[in-house]
Formats: sequence, C-alpha cells, structure tokens
Amino acid sequence: MATEGAPGVPKTIEWSDGTLRLLDQTRLPHVEEYVDCRTVTSVYEAIRTLRVRGAPAIGIAAAYGLLVRDTHEQDQDGQDQDTHEIPIQQIQDIHVFMAELHRRADYLVSARPTAVNLAWAIDRMLRRAREIDRENVDVPKSVPKSGNVDVQNSGNVGVRKLVGGLEAEAGRIYAEDAAACRAIGEAGLEIVRSHPHVLTHCNAGALAVSELGTALAPIYLAHAGGIDVHVFVDETRPLLQGARLTAYELQRAGVAITLITDNAAAHVMSTGKVDAVIVGADRVAASGDVANKIGTLNLAILCRHFGLPFYVACPWSTIDTATPTGAGIIVEERPAAEVSSIGETATAPPGTPVFNPAFDITPADLVTAIITEKGVIEPPYPPKLAGS
Amino acid sequence: MATEGAPGVPKTIEWSDGTLRLLDQTRLPHVEEYVDCRTVTSVYEAIRTLRVRGAPAIGIAAAYGLLVRDTHEQDQDGQDQDTHEIPIQQIQDIHVFMAELHRRADYLVSARPTAVNLAWAIDRMLRRAREIDRENVDVPKSVPKSGNVDVQNSGNVGVRKLVGGLEAEAGRIYAEDAAACRAIGEAGLEIVRSHPHVLTHCNAGALAVSELGTALAPIYLAHAGGIDVHVFVDETRPLLQGARLTAYELQRAGVAITLITDNAAAHVMSTGKVDAVIVGADRVAASGDVANKIGTLNLAILCRHFGLPFYVACPWSTIDTATPTGAGIIVEERPAAEVSSIGETATAPPGTPVFNPAFDITPADLVTAIITEKGVIEPPYPPKLAGS
Repeated sequence: MATEGAPGVPKTIEWSDGTLRLLDQTRLPHVEEYVDCRTVTSVYEAIRTLRVRGAPAIGIAAAYGLLVRDTHEQDQDGQDQDTHEIPIQQIQDIHVFMAELHRRADYLVSARPTAVNLAWAIDRMLRRAREIDRENVDVPKSVPKSGNVDVQNSGNVGVRKLVGGLEAEAGRIYAEDAAACRAIGEAGLEIVRSHPHVLTHCNAGALAVSELGTALAPIYLAHAGGIDVHVFVDETRPLLQGARLTAYELQRAGVAITLITDNAAAHVMSTGKVDAVIVGADRVAASGDVANKIGTLNLAILCRHFGLPFYVACPWSTIDTATPTGAGIIVEERPAAEVSSIGETATAPPGTPVFNPAFDITPADLVTAIITEKGVIEPPYPPKLAGS
Repeated sequence: MATEGAPGVPKTIEWSDGTLRLLDQTRLPHVEEYVDCRTVTSVYEAIRTLRVRGAPAIGIAAAYGLLVRDTHEQDQDGQDQDTHEIPIQQIQDIHVFMAELHRRADYLVSARPTAVNLAWAIDRMLRRAREIDRENVDVPKSVPKSGNVDVQNSGNVGVRKLVGGLEAEAGRIYAEDAAACRAIGEAGLEIVRSHPHVLTHCNAGALAVSELGTALAPIYLAHAGGIDVHVFVDETRPLLQGARLTAYELQRAGVAITLITDNAAAHVMSTGKVDAVIVGADRVAASGDVANKIGTLNLAILCRHFGLPFYVACPWSTIDTATPTGAGIIVEERPAAEVSSIGETATAPPGTPVFNPAFDITPADLVTAIITEKGVIEPPYPPKLAGS
C-alpha cells in the first residue's frame, strides 16, 4: 500500500549507511533538530530520554538501533575508547556477530520497560537473524582473522548477508507501520466524520510512528477529505507532549486545534464541545485493557460520565496477547524532576516527594472500540482480539 | 473563638496603618516575599495577578483594599502623579469620601469576576459604611476646606469615624474567617480521621484564607491530633498552586505529602491509595453546584467512578444563595500564556489557540457533602443550604 506522511510534518526516523537519524522531540516545537545516532548507547539514550517516543517509533528506532555502526562512542581516530571493538558490519565471525546482536538487544530493550513495541521489534529482528543464519548454512561461519581486514573482500559473507537482511527487516517494520497507520486512518475515518470534534491526549501522531500517526491518522485523513475537524489537545503533563508535539504537528498540517490543560477536559466535555476522545496506546492486553500515557484513564472515565465514545487507535502489534489483563502490565515510574520542575525551573519546594507514573491502565470496559489496521475492534474482549 | 494558624506557615495578609501587606504567592515556594500595598491600584493588581488568591483571602484583601491610603501611585513628594488627590483618610467631606469608597469598590470588584467573596466582602464594607454614616447624623457632613489641613484637628470627625469603623469591619471579616476556618477544620476532623489518605487540588490552605485554610483545615487539625495523614497534592495546572503552594505549606507544617500531576489522579485512585478528595470552592450555588479551580470536576467524576467520597470545604460566605444553580456562574477565562508557556518558557508553538477556563462547575449530585463552619452539609440541596 502506498503511504504518505501528514503534510508539513518532518520525518521522525530516517536510516542511512549505519546511522539512525532521529528528529529530536525533546527540542520541539521550538527547534527542529536531528540527532544522528551511530552508537547503540546513543540510540539507548535517545529512547530513554524521549528524543524518540511513541510505541511504534520506538520499535522502529530500536530495530535500526541494533544495526548502528558502533556500540560505544569512538575517539577521533575511530577507535572505541574502552574496548577498541570493530564496527558490527565488520565483524568476521557469525557467532561473534550474533552474540553482539543479542547484547545490543538486551541493552536496548531495557531503555523503556512498558513499550511493548520495543521488545516486539527487537524480538522480530532476532528471529529474522536466526532465519537468515539458518538459510546461510552453506556460507562459512567464520573466516581466518587478519590484522588489517579489507571488509569488502574479507569473506565475511555470512555477516554481510545478515546485516543486509536485518536492514531489510527493519525497513519492513517501518513500511508495515506506515501502511498500518494509513489503514488505521481509513478504519477510523467514519468515526471522525460522525465525531468531528475530537479530544486527544499526549502525542499519537506522525511524530510517534513512522508516518501519519495512530490516533491522529483518522484526523489527518478526515482533514484531507475536507471534513471540518477540530481537535482539543490536552497539554499532557508532565512532559507536555500534547502542547509540544501534537499542537505542533496538527498545526503544521493545517488542522484546527485548541490547546487546553489536562484539567480542562471535563469542563470542555460538560459544555458539549467534544464528540469523542481518541488516544493511542503503549500496550493493549488480551483483555482489551489499555496502557497509555498517564491521564488516559481520567479521560476514559470522563467519557463514560458524559456519554461520549472513547477510542484507542494503535497498530495490531501493540496488542500483547501474552499479557492476559492490564494487571500484568508494569507501569514505568519516571524521575521526580519531571513533575517538580519544568525545564530548568523548579515548580515545587526542594525535596518534595513525587509519584510520577508514566502510564495508567484503562480497563477494557471503558473503551468503546480499538481502531487498528485490521479494522475497528469492539468488545467483548478477548474473543475478537485474541482470536484474530 | 481563639484561632491559631497552621504552624510554620507565614501569614498571608497583614494590615497596618493604611498599608496592606500581602505574602506574594506568585513568588512561592522559592522566595518568601511580601508586597506592601499602599494604593488601590496595587491591591487591584495583586488580586488580578494572584499575588493574593483564594476566595476568603481575596475578600479580606479587598476589604482592607478599600481603605489603603492612596488611590494611585504617588511621586516622591507624596503627591499623586495624576490628580494630586489627598489620602482617603484625609478627605474632609463625607460625600466625597463615600463617592471615593464606591469608586474603589467598583474598581476592586472587577479584578476577579468569579470569586463571590470579593463582591461579598466589598458589599459588606459598603453596607457598614452606610450604617456608620446613619449613626453619625449629628456629626457635620463636611467642614470648610483649607489649603493646609491639620488632619488631627480638621474636624473631619465623620470621615475619621467611618475609617475607624471600616477598619474594624475589615478586622471582623478577617477574624470571622479565621474562626470559620478553625470550625471547618473541626467539622471535617472526623472525615479525615476515617479517611486519612486525602487527595486535594489547587490550594485551599492557610495561604488561601486568613489562617489554617478550608480544605486543608481538617488536615492540619488531624495532623496536630496525631492522626497519620497523607496528602496527594495535584500540581494543578496551569498556575501550579498545588505544587507551589499546597506542597509548600503542608510541608512547612510537617504533613506528609506526595506531589502528582493532575493526570495521575485516576491512577492513584485506581490503586487504592486515596480514601477521599477534599477541595475548596470559589462559589457554591443554592443548588449545591460548586465552582472551583479547573480540574475539580474531573476529580468529582473520578470519585464517583471509584466510589470515593468527594468533599468541598468552604466558609458559609462562599454559598451564594442568589445564584440558583451552577449554570448561573460565569466561568472566568484567563490568558492563553498561562497554558502555552510556563514561566518564561514557551511550551507550545507560537500563536497556538488556547482555551483557559479558570474554573469548572461540579454539579451538586457529585458532591458527597460540603464542610462549613456551621457543620457538614449533605444533600439534598437546596433545603438545608438555603434554609439556614
């Protein structure tokens, strides 16, 4: 399926020649700056510090992150500062390569414990590596080591085939996500047509995925189709992804928005200005329970109170059938400083105790439907979800 | 009734010799700084910019604000820069004094349209002025003007009696509020004893009133009585009164707190960590509908969902029997910059449209009870409220 991003919104993720280029979302909306990750540690840091965020985007970044040239920063001579290891593409021995791949996988997966797409993408890459390895039984597993290897002629055919195959797999993860986002947009288009005044939380837009978004995909398609959409954007404390990212990308694409504090959601609903809430998801349990940005549960409860539909939009890969219910989802706690200061400015007295859960769990019975690339999934769960 | 503030919390309002001293709440928690208001314009600005905030505190400040020495800023020679008018205490003619008093009243009441205590306190002061004026029928209404008046011997006995009587009235408003806060604390003490894990929103503490607070009064008394209280403090965007003020004053008094984002309220409730919500009120309609800081309605709906009691604590003067229901309460909209920036830092793209309601209206049917100095008022409303 042909895909195309939201007009006017810069690319979140690009891959070229062993380098992962990420739009630094911690600098938005004021500065559009890219970080070029050439080491696994820089990919880990980019995921952990939310330079790249959004479950699908994290998955794509991690898949490519397995393949970046180096593990650690190198000094100016191109030598690793600690271990003087060689770039992953130049490893000679497939066993060494696979061990390095698994070490990188274990490291990257620990950057964000709640995001299921991170583990999902890395597992998929490791599975593909084993497949390619099995296909390559005829290729020598290792070649004699040399002090000064000419990579192009070194005979590490197996590793080069692995790297090429894994790059292609990461590319497929990207392309499948882009196609899924468009399909989510098409699946949700009728919902937005009949509910053109949408409230959304956090950022489940183009910046959170490959292209177009999940929760925002139906909005972009509706806007492109001439529907008079209006979006209330929750600012989404503590990290203000709504104010910084959703307000940014929707306005870049020409969609009419109004920014509100998270506190104003009930008031806005009570005055009849909202037809529906659409949010993304970081993980959906087999039961249909949804882990998403802190504050999502608030909105789902408000929707129930005001009789408004509450939709979750996410790619199918977000549904974790290995997790029976939301009770099995570990809610990541993030640093106190995200709450007790904003940027460089402290907002609370020094040393104030803080509880800063990154996510909450919305029980399935508060979710009107889940909009996926396979269509709009309605309760009861798990049959339709788990059975597909 | 003897009153006593929360231990460790500085005085919010002090009055001395024609000067209103306010603890500047826009500088807390980092700087404990006082502003000395000697002009009506500076009192107006202090109310409008939330240097003094909280319905009862605004009422007290406005009552004293009627009596500050000057109307406008004066130059170094003590002369008003524009009109060279004389200090209110030195006005010779009672008609001139009353006209100036009403001009100040109209001006001050426009500083915050939603806070009923502001209008209530000013009306009470004007009523008292008319009473004193009637009592003074024997006193000459005006004296011959002189180019260089000796105030002590000028014969403006009527004006001096008025000023003295009005100062006493403002003092009574303060003392009655302090007594009411203590009585609210005593009325709510059993609620906190049986619900020691409280969540609160905004600041309805000592800083919002004369002394002790409304929503926080039962908490202070419970803490003083050895009850192991714990308070989840909503940070309360946009102006962060929870993080800045409630976290500050509760910790100054030694009460255990945890600061959370407004978004975390539902999650915290879902995990069983909250026994009850207690908030203040800016205005209560005769029906029992409550106008309070934006986000209050969210919490009331969450409490209904989780089966938790939702209490409003306020002095009786907050109940506006002239307003039948919440539909009659005008919700103040505040500047966009409060949402689209935090301090000096912009959080959203330039020009982002913002909706920033300062309050929301919680319908009476979501309110478990209203804790007042006359006891704990339970529904159905209005009979018990309006009938008292």
